[in-house]
Amino acid sequence: MTNTSHSPGQQDADEGPAVPLTAQDSLGISARTQLRPIHDIGAELGLDKDLIEPYGRGVGKVDLAAIDRLADRPRAKYILVTAITPTPLGEGKTTTAVGLGQGLQQTGRRAAVAVRQPSLGPTLGIKGGGTGGGWSQVVPMERLNLHLTGDLHAVTAAHNQLAAMVDNHLHRGSPSGLQPERVTWRRVMDVNDRSLRQIITGMGPAGGGPSSNGPVRQSGFDITAASEVMATLSLARSLEDLRSRLGRIVVGTTGDGKPVTAEDIKAAGAMTVLLREALQPNLLQTVEHTPALVHCGPFGNIATGNSSVVADLIGARTTDYLITEAGFAADMGAERFFNIKCRVSGLEPDAAVVVTTVRALKVHSGHHRVVAGKSLPERMREENPEEVRTGAENLRAQLRIIRRHGVTPVVAINAFPTDFTSEHEVIAQVAAEEGARCAVSTHFSDGGAGAAELAEAVAEAAEEPGRFRFLYSDEAPLIEKIETIATEIYGADGVEVSPTAAKDLASFTEAGYGRLPVCVAKTHLSMSADPKLVGAPTGWRLPVREVRLSAGAGFVYPICGTMQTMPGLGASPAAENIDIDDDGRPVGLF
Amino acid sequence: MTNTSHSPGQQDADEGPAVPLTAQDSLGISARTQLRPIHDIGAELGLDKDLIEPYGRGVGKVDLAAIDRLADRPRAKYILVTAITPTPLGEGKTTTAVGLGQGLQQTGRRAAVAVRQPSLGPTLGIKGGGTGGGWSQVVPMERLNLHLTGDLHAVTAAHNQLAAMVDNHLHRGSPSGLQPERVTWRRVMDVNDRSLRQIITGMGPAGGGPSSNGPVRQSGFDITAASEVMATLSLARSLEDLRSRLGRIVVGTTGDGKPVTAEDIKAAGAMTVLLREALQPNLLQTVEHTPALVHCGPFGNIATGNSSVVADLIGARTTDYLITEAGFAADMGAERFFNIKCRVSGLEPDAAVVVTTVRALKVHSGHHRVVAGKSLPERMREENPEEVRTGAENLRAQLRIIRRHGVTPVVAINAFPTDFTSEHEVIAQVAAEEGARCAVSTHFSDGGAGAAELAEAVAEAAEEPGRFRFLYSDEAPLIEKIETIATEIYGADGVEVSPTAAKDLASFTEAGYGRLPVCVAKTHLSMSADPKLVGAPTGWRLPVREVRLSAGAGFVYPICGTMQTMPGLGASPAAENIDIDDDGRPVGLF
Repeated sequence: MTNTSHSPGQQDADEGPAVPLTAQDSLGISARTQLRPIHDIGAELGLDKDLIEPYGRGVGKVDLAAIDRLADRPRAKYILVTAITPTPLGEGKTTTAVGLGQGLQQTGRRAAVAVRQPSLGPTLGIKGGGTGGGWSQVVPMERLNLHLTGDLHAVTAAHNQLAAMVDNHLHRGSPSGLQPERVTWRRVMDVNDRSLRQIITGMGPAGGGPSSNGPVRQSGFDITAASEVMATLSLARSLEDLRSRLGRIVVGTTGDGKPVTAEDIKAAGAMTVLLREALQPNLLQTVEHTPALVHCGPFGNIATGNSSVVADLIGARTTDYLITEAGFAADMGAERFFNIKCRVSGLEPDAAVVVTTVRALKVHSGHHRVVAGKSLPERMREENPEEVRTGAENLRAQLRIIRRHGVTPVVAINAFPTDFTSEHEVIAQVAAEEGARCAVSTHFSDGGAGAAELAEAVAEAAEEPGRFRFLYSDEAPLIEKIETIATEIYGADGVEVSPTAAKDLASFTEAGYGRLPVCVAKTHLSMSADPKLVGAPTGWRLPVREVRLSAGAGFVYPICGTMQTMPGLGASPAAENIDIDDDGRPVGLF
Repeated sequence: MTNTSHSPGQQDADEGPAVPLTAQDSLGISARTQLRPIHDIGAELGLDKDLIEPYGRGVGKVDLAAIDRLADRPRAKYILVTAITPTPLGEGKTTTAVGLGQGLQQTGRRAAVAVRQPSLGPTLGIKGGGTGGGWSQVVPMERLNLHLTGDLHAVTAAHNQLAAMVDNHLHRGSPSGLQPERVTWRRVMDVNDRSLRQIITGMGPAGGGPSSNGPVRQSGFDITAASEVMATLSLARSLEDLRSRLGRIVVGTTGDGKPVTAEDIKAAGAMTVLLREALQPNLLQTVEHTPALVHCGPFGNIATGNSSVVADLIGARTTDYLITEAGFAADMGAERFFNIKCRVSGLEPDAAVVVTTVRALKVHSGHHRVVAGKSLPERMREENPEEVRTGAENLRAQLRIIRRHGVTPVVAINAFPTDFTSEHEVIAQVAAEEGARCAVSTHFSDGGAGAAELAEAVAEAAEEPGRFRFLYSDEAPLIEKIETIATEIYGADGVEVSPTAAKDLASFTEAGYGRLPVCVAKTHLSMSADPKLVGAPTGWRLPVREVRLSAGAGFVYPICGTMQTMPGLGASPAAENIDIDDDGRPVGLF
C-alpha cells in the first residue's frame, strides 16, 4: 500500500504544496495573508460596527453588549473540538478547529472558531506559537503569539495586585486574621522561569518593623495561564459576574481555618477594573478569513483548559456553526467543557470532534515513545495498521466519554504525509464500531478544502437530536463527583483519597463550596494518573493527594499527580532564535 | 489683597467652574469628553491614515515610518516643560504641558504635547492617575491610567524574559562565565509591592542537580518604570537602534569582571520582538482635542524621566509647537533632557517652561513641610509674598540651569485658588530679575483659555535665536561629567567619591563605557543629595556611593542617596477605592 492519504487538495500548487509544510512555510503563509478589515469580519457575524473596537491591524475587541443585543438570533450549532490522549507533540486540535471552521465555510456554511490565546512563556520557551499552522492558522500570528491585546498581561496585573495587597495586609497587622503561613495566593508571570517556582519574599531590613519589607514568607510564581484569575476570566458570564467571582477568590485562611477572600482584602474592585477590557473577546480571522474569537487560555492541568464563556456566548448567536476548542484529550478538556464550562454558559453542544492521529495511536499501542523536540522513531513511520488498532482503545474510550454526555462524536483523522491508507482505514473501522462518523482531514496542507469531508460529517452529526446531560449533579458530594469522573471517565476502579485530601474535602464542604464542580488535576499524557500508561488503562485507582479550591473560577481541583505550574526553559530556548529581520519583521516565532 | 489670582476663565460655568476642581470633577470632565476619532487627531498632525493604527477607542499607535516620511517637513518649535524642585505633591508639570498645548491651539497655533505614560503601580498605590487633571488632561483617562496599549507590560515581559534566560544560562553551566553572585539584572513588575524588593530565587529540590530550580540567589524586583529596558525604549531612535541597544545591556560579569551582555545570553532578539509594538508612540488627545503623544515612562530618579525620543522625532515634524515634558525639576529632568535625550535625538529645544507654584516656593523658604496625602498646613494658606521671595532662590537656580544650556526659559505660575496676587507678583519680579518671561496659568480650571498668556510668552521665547549647547562633551572623563553636573547644575562645591564608586568608574572606563553621558541618581526633593535641604543649597558636596551602568539605555548613573526602585503600598492603597459602578464603568481612578 502506498503513502497516499495526503491528498493534494484543491488549492493551487502555489498556495497549498503537497509536500510537508515546515514552520518556515507556516510563517510564510501567515505573512502573505491579506488581512480583511476587522469590521468586515465582524459584519460576517452580523456584529454592528459599534460592537467591535479595532486594536491594531486585523484585531478587534467585541463589546459584551453583543450578548444581550443578539439574544433573539437563532443559536448556532455548537461544536466542540477535542482529541484522543495526545503525545507530547500535540495532535493538531487547534489546526483542526481552524480547518473545520474553514471547511464549513468552503462547503457553503457560515462558521466561526473560538480558540484559546497562546501563552507567551511557552512561545518563547519550548514550543513556538499556538495559532494553528500551515493553511489552518489564525492571523496575524505575530500579534496572537505575543501580546495580542494584552489580556494575559491584564490577568498578570490583576493577580499580582491582589498578591501585593495580601502582603501589605499582613505587613499592616492582618486585620482579617489571615495567617502568613496560611496564604495560598502566589504570584504569576507569563514566562518560563524555573527560578521563580519557589522563592522567599519580604527579605530586607531585619527586625520586622514598619521599615521592613513585610513578613518573610515562602512563596513562588506560576505561569499566568495557571492563575485562578485566568480561570475566573474564562468562566465569567458578564462584567458583574466577573466582579462577584473575583471577590470570592480565597487567598488563604485565618488561624482557625476561616477563608479570607479578595473581597476581604478589598482588591476585587481594582482587579475588575484591570480586567475590564480583557473580558472582551478578541476577534481575528483565519488565513481563509473565517472569523476567529480568541480569548483566554487557562491552564489545562489545574484549570479548565477551555476558551472563554463570553466568546462562546457571542459566537453562539452570530453564526451557524461555532467551533470551540478544549485542551488536551476528551477525558480532560471535554469533560470539563461539559461539566464546568457548559454548566456556566448554559450552552449545549451539538457534536464533538475527536482529533486522532496515526502517530498518537501507534504510541498508544505501547510500542513507541516520542519525545518533544526530537524526530519520530524511524519504526513509527513504517506501515502498521495493527499497532493503530491496538492503540485505538484510547480513541474508543474518548468516544464513549462524549457519548456519556449525550453528545454525538465525530472522529477527525488529522492526516500526516507519513500516514498509510491502511492505517486510516483501521481508524475508520474503529469509529464505525463505536457508531461514530469519521473523516480524514488535510486542513494543515490544504486549508478548508482539506477539511470538506470533515465539515460534512460534522454538519450531519450536529443534526442528530440533542440529549446533552451533565455527568453529575451540583448536589452530589465532592467525593462522589471525583469518583464519578475517575470511574466513568478515566476508567479507574476507584479513588485513593489521602488523609490530607479527605480533610480538604471536609473543610471545603463545611465552608459552603460543596456544590462546586470538580476539575481533576492530573497528567494529560494518559487517561490514568500515570503519564507512562498509554491506551485505555484499567485496573488502577486515582490517587487524590490533596484538594485545592478555585472559589473565584468556581471549582475545586483534586491534585492527582505532580503538576508543574511554572515551566522552565530548555537548553536552547525558542527565544534564542527569535529576532527581527532586516526589514524589522519578527522571525523565529513558529 | 484678595484671593483673585484664579480667573474664572473663558469657559461656560457649566464647563469650567471657578471653584477648585476635585478629583471627582476631573473624572467627570474626562468622562464627558467627546473623543474625536483618532484618525482625525492624526490628520491634524498631517499623519496619513496608514501611519496610525487604532488601538481601542480614542487611542492609536503611530508607525515609525512617519519619521522618514516626514523628514522634509519644517521642524516644530521644541518646548520643554520642566519645574522648580517639587514638593511631594507635585507642582503640575503634566497639567501645564497639556494646558500649554491647548493654550497654543486656543491662540491660533498648531501644537501637540508629548508626555509620559503613567505607571500602574502608583496609580493603584498612592497617587492616583497621571494624566493631567481638571480641564488639562489627556483622555481617555481610564485607558491611559491602566494598560493603555500594553507598552509597560511589554517592557515587563522583555525584561523578565532576559532574567529567565540569565538564570537558565546559570542553570546550564554558564557558558559565558557569568557568575551567579555577580548578576546585576533583577526582575520587574508594574505594581507597588515591597515584599518583592529583596527575594531569594531558585529554592526547591536540594542538591543543585538538573532537577533543581537553578542557583539559589539573592535578587529582587523593581517597578517596571525603573527597568533599563524602559530607559532603553525611551532613548531608541529606531527599531534597529533598539535592537543594538538591547544587545548591549549588561546583566552581570564574569569572575574576572568582564561584562556579560543580553547579546551573550542570546535574548536581545526576542526582547526586540516583544517590544516591536511598544516602540510605536501612542496617539491620544487632550480634553480640548490637542494631539497628545504618550510614550514611555522611565523612572525619574535612576533614569531620564523623559518621554521617548521617537515620540519627539515624530512630533517635531508634525506640528508647529511640540511641548515635551521632563520629570521632576530642571536640575533632574531638564539636565538629562538636554544632555542625554537631545544628544540621542539631535533635536534642539527652543524654550523651556519652568513650572512654579506658590505652594512649593513657600516650602523652599524653609518654613513649611508638606506631606503627600495630607492637606496643606493652615499657615501656608496665609498671604506671604516674603516667603515666596525667599523660596524663589530655587526658581532662580533652575532658570540658570536652563540658561546654562543656551535655552530661553519661561516661568509658568501654575495658579491655585489659594494663591494671592502679591505672591504671583513676587514670582514675576524674580523672573524679570533673571531675564525670563513669566505668565500666570489657570489651565487646570480653565483649560487652554487659562494658558493663553503662557502660550504667548512661550511663542515669543521660542523666537529667540537658539544657542543650545551640551553641558559636557562625550570625551570628558566620567568623573569630570559628574563633577560638572554637581557643581554647575546642583550648586555643590564638589563630589565625594567613595572607593567603590572610584573602582566602578575605572572599570566602566576601561570596559569602553567612558564616552557615555551621566544620569545622576539622587533625590528629586532637593537640588542637593539631601531631600530635607530646600531652596538652592550651598556648601555641600555630592556623595557618590557607587556607580552603575545602563549600557543599553546608554548612560552611567552614580548613586547619590538611597533610591527606592520598588514602591510599597500605604495603609489604604488607592486600589481599595477602585471598582466598577452599576453601569460597569471604572470609579476611583483619580
